[in-house]
Amino acid sequence: MTPVSLAHLNEASKADFVAALGDIYEHAPWVADAVAGHRPFATLADLHDAMTAAVRDAPADQGLALINGHPDLAGKAARAGTMTTDSTAEQSGAGLDRLSEQEFAQFHRLNDAYRAKFGIPFIICVRRHSKGSILRHFEHRLHNDATTELDAALTEISRIAALRLDQRVEAADRLKVHGRLSTHVLDTHAGRPASDVLIELLELSAHEESRTLVTARTNQDGRTDQPLIAGRPVPIGRYELRFHIGDYFARLDAALADPPFLGVVPMQLSVAEPEAHYHVPLLATPWSYTTYRGS
Amino acid sequence: MTPVSLAHLNEASKADFVAALGDIYEHAPWVADAVAGHRPFATLADLHDAMTAAVRDAPADQGLALINGHPDLAGKAARAGTMTTDSTAEQSGAGLDRLSEQEFAQFHRLNDAYRAKFGIPFIICVRRHSKGSILRHFEHRLHNDATTELDAALTEISRIAALRLDQRVEAADRLKVHGRLSTHVLDTHAGRPASDVLIELLELSAHEESRTLVTARTNQDGRTDQPLIAGRPVPIGRYELRFHIGDYFARLDAALADPPFLGVVPMQLSVAEPEAHYHVPLLATPWSYTTYRGS
Amino acid sequence: MTPVSLAHLNEASKADFVAALGDIYEHAPWVADAVAGHRPFATLADLHDAMTAAVRDAPADQGLALINGHPDLAGKAARAGTMTTDSTAEQSGAGLDRLSEQEFAQFHRLNDAYRAKFGIPFIICVRRHSKGSILRHFEHRLHNDATTELDAALTEISRIAALRLDQRVEAADRLKVHGRLSTHVLDTHAGRPASDVLIELLELSAHEESRTLVTARTNQDGRTDQPLIAGRPVPIGRYELRFHIGDYFARLDAALADPPFLGVVPMQLSVAEPEAHYHVPLLATPWSYTTYRGS
Amino acid sequence: MTPVSLAHLNEASKADFVAALGDIYEHAPWVADAVAGHRPFATLADLHDAMTAAVRDAPADQGLALINGHPDLAGKAARAGTMTTDSTAEQSGAGLDRLSEQEFAQFHRLNDAYRAKFGIPFIICVRRHSKGSILRHFEHRLHNDATTELDAALTEISRIAALRLDQRVEAADRLKVHGRLSTHVLDTHAGRPASDVLIELLELSAHEESRTLVTARTNQDGRTDQPLIAGRPVPIGRYELRFHIGDYFARLDAALADPPFLGVVPMQLSVAEPEAHYHVPLLATPWSYTTYRGS
Repeated sequence: MTPVSLAHLNEASKADFVAALGDIYEHAPWVADAVAGHRPFATLADLHDAMTAAVRDAPADQGLALINGHPDLAGKAARAGTMTTDSTAEQSGAGLDRLSEQEFAQFHRLNDAYRAKFGIPFIICVRRHSKGSILRHFEHRLHNDATTELDAALTEISRIAALRLDQRVEAADRLKVHGRLSTHVLDTHAGRPASDVLIELLELSAHEESRTLVTARTNQDGRTDQPLIAGRPVPIGRYELRFHIGDYFARLDAALADPPFLGVVPMQLSVAEPEAHYHVPLLATPWSYTTYRGS
Repeated sequence: MTPVSLAHLNEASKADFVAALGDIYEHAPWVADAVAGHRPFATLADLHDAMTAAVRDAPADQGLALINGHPDLAGKAARAGTMTTDSTAEQSGAGLDRLSEQEFAQFHRLNDAYRAKFGIPFIICVRRHSKGSILRHFEHRLHNDATTELDAALTEISRIAALRLDQRVEAADRLKVHGRLSTHVLDTHAGRPASDVLIELLELSAHEESRTLVTARTNQDGRTDQPLIAGRPVPIGRYELRFHIGDYFARLDAALADPPFLGVVPMQLSVAEPEAHYHVPLLATPWSYTTYRGS
Repeated sequence: MTPVSLAHLNEASKADFVAALGDIYEHAPWVADAVAGHRPFATLADLHDAMTAAVRDAPADQGLALINGHPDLAGKAARAGTMTTDSTAEQSGAGLDRLSEQEFAQFHRLNDAYRAKFGIPFIICVRRHSKGSILRHFEHRLHNDATTELDAALTEISRIAALRLDQRVEAADRLKVHGRLSTHVLDTHAGRPASDVLIELLELSAHEESRTLVTARTNQDGRTDQPLIAGRPVPIGRYELRFHIGDYFARLDAALADPPFLGVVPMQLSVAEPEAHYHVPLLATPWSYTTYRGS
Repeated sequence: MTPVSLAHLNEASKADFVAALGDIYEHAPWVADAVAGHRPFATLADLHDAMTAAVRDAPADQGLALINGHPDLAGKAARAGTMTTDSTAEQSGAGLDRLSEQEFAQFHRLNDAYRAKFGIPFIICVRRHSKGSILRHFEHRLHNDATTELDAALTEISRIAALRLDQRVEAADRLKVHGRLSTHVLDTHAGRPASDVLIELLELSAHEESRTLVTARTNQDGRTDQPLIAGRPVPIGRYELRFHIGDYFARLDAALADPPFLGVVPMQLSVAEPEAHYHVPLLATPWSYTTYRGS
């Protein structure tokens, strides 16, 4: 769907406004309808706040209907192809559309247990998670009480809405939904940025092969031209950076052992805050390196 | 075979001396015979030097016979079970007794090509190499000329003899055949050695799954009670150390992210000098680490 | 003198142009006069190139007169107060107006020796140097031959002119005369930027007390709001950064020894390229630190 | 005084025993007398424990007399030359025999205030402290109550006795009175120990010039042949290590800036536990370094 500007939305007819934002909340155009009268919104954050408030202030049964309007994760609607466009994209982004038999069974079991205990579907903003993290939270949240989970469902719905709004509406401000993963390679052997170093970013998984997300080379400043991940949440999960510094030092004719002591430097990190900036520099010589969470 | 002391060998009858050391050189008891008259040897190094000199000074056809007495790597004799006890142990130590079909074919092809070009078997001191390193050297040495390879064969035979002598003979001195791989974990978050950290050492391979060689935990000084590898050459090859520092810091109740930023720290290194000491410390906090070739 | 825009200079009368830039070259308004006809200059770099070329292409005696128009360093003109405004500011910036008796005698001796050998005054772009560096270069250049020194004099005059132009003329481009010294403090104990850390920058001297140039505190990102040195050359010389990380960690209630193992972290560096960017991060815990030339 | 063996003391007459150890406690041979009957002592630690117990168990007035038998720090007895040999050596070791006028006045004031408040002299085991640390503790302890200070006096007396016993008596065990300060320089540019690096150890002071304690060069393993401090407590205080790595890398013909980015690496540390092992390695390239409290 083509992005629309906040200015345009502020001046649109109520019908057009609701048409444009009716699917920000799953099967709940009434949320857009409820805030249309509060226009104009000075910022996108104001719009999101108003929609979140409308949901929180709605009658209990309407809130519950909103919650129940969400599909199961990797559930019947997904298989039947009857999910909304947004939900389909979100679930496939986290890999929920290509589960192994075992994972499929695990989601099935969790969905049933969750519905049996709480009477609502399990809701989580999947774009903030890797598949492993979704499963870990799913297992964990099953132990909560009903009040906690009702609250969690609304919190996650607000996060889903924020990400949808951020994609749908152009405004001077951006919602705080963007994390970042970046790196910087310093050659402390020669005292300068390390350029043309091959870097791979992999997503690690407990049970599967790791998956390469990005391959890039450092530029003259030792950075990649684009952050490895940006403009979206960095999914909660485990990652591996692989820095090919052996090839780099070999190209420089540094005095190396044969084979060189260091070839590929692997660095494993976990992301806990999807909206944070993870900057992970590497300071390297042919014989040593330092890496850390930078800023 | 029970080790025997150098003092005992110095005083033994010539027949007993040759019986004890006749298989230091493959199918060539004449080497022991040739040096028996030079006894007593003050050191094990003197004995090894004398044997090496006897081989170098032997008539050309005798030297060639010595070379030709060596079995192919993963060759006919290995399959037929007709190799000497030493050769059998040495080849299986490098994994040559459990090759895949593809590797087996590769050795077969290389053995044939080498014999076709040089008229002798390819000789390499396998205890100084991983399987990948053997194949790399095999391919590389095929490009040499005959003189270089005759010389290489004698050098490798001298290395094989040194390792056999080192196991067979007890003396005040040791031959320089022992490398070492060790580590040391410092907790720079609390300013003390990191104790009870799980460490794994894996051998990496280009085409196969990595193989766990050692699992150990650090002691109160942040070291393992025994070096990870010691008392033998560290085979030329690629290795991965895996330091489980996430668990360590979690036990200390350090303020960590959830999941912790650093869980397992992998460190990959290549060994180029089997007789060298590879000391690889790790300085770690929950958010950073430094590793290097130490001493 | 108020800066003037390049656009204005391009449209000014020749007389006004020469009036504005007549003192870019010491006592040599003829340089400005020589390039006035080449207007308009698209960039400040073009203007500087043209002036440099005019000097290089001038008759030998005119070039020599330009060289001889420069005052001695800490010489008679300086004492008599008869130097140009620019020279006075430049020499005092490097501390040449507050020499000890001994230094004064040293400059006197060097000036005499240089004039005796080469028949011209010693010229160096003092804004690119600390006092110690000036003396070191002075001693060193005395050993050169006359051709080398004539060439060095013109190179230094071109550098002096570039710095004067950079201050005098506003343009879209800047001349490459600006170096930078900056820092960044990372708290690798807590995995975040270290804010509110006191940092001192001192200039070190072989024979005198060190001199504090800057005192600053890090902001939320672990950087100082302004680079420690920027907008000018970083004088060739020795410096010390002093990071007060003991106070920082004490404020955080980190578990520290009493007194803390690390209080002030001193870091000494030498600057060799005044127009380069010296970025010197510090990664620190209460028990360890890493520092390096970054980018 | 020549050391005497524990075995000899165990078998000596009571008179000889008391003669040998009568001055372990200041002007209090009764302590040696009190424990003579408990012989034989299996270890030096047993002997020290017995003497400490004898003091703790003595009647209150005898304990008080022991305390009052100690001289003031830098006090009247010191000036008059009437202190015991041990006290004289101990006070001069901490520099209390060469105070500035101001420091002298400060000690005078503190001694008076302490006696006025507590009625006893201020006792501290000066061999565990630098002058600055003594003054800091002196000021601090003035704020305590009388019970705390009586207890502190006995603790310090036990420490003084342990150090005297450790010097006087030879035994298989040593008392835990020995700290250590050592270093290790690794060249992470070339991946090996840095040999022949000049290292200075200075004691820092708040008000005075720093004092060079040790100058040494690293050996082939990157260590100094002897620890910088060993065989005694490392006095509580501030120190600076100065590593001359610029000269080291220049000798290796590493590609350096002119002047080199790093010349001398200063490292300041504070000692809080005189009996601990302070190991402070340096990992250096011409452009970076890491230092930390090691083990």
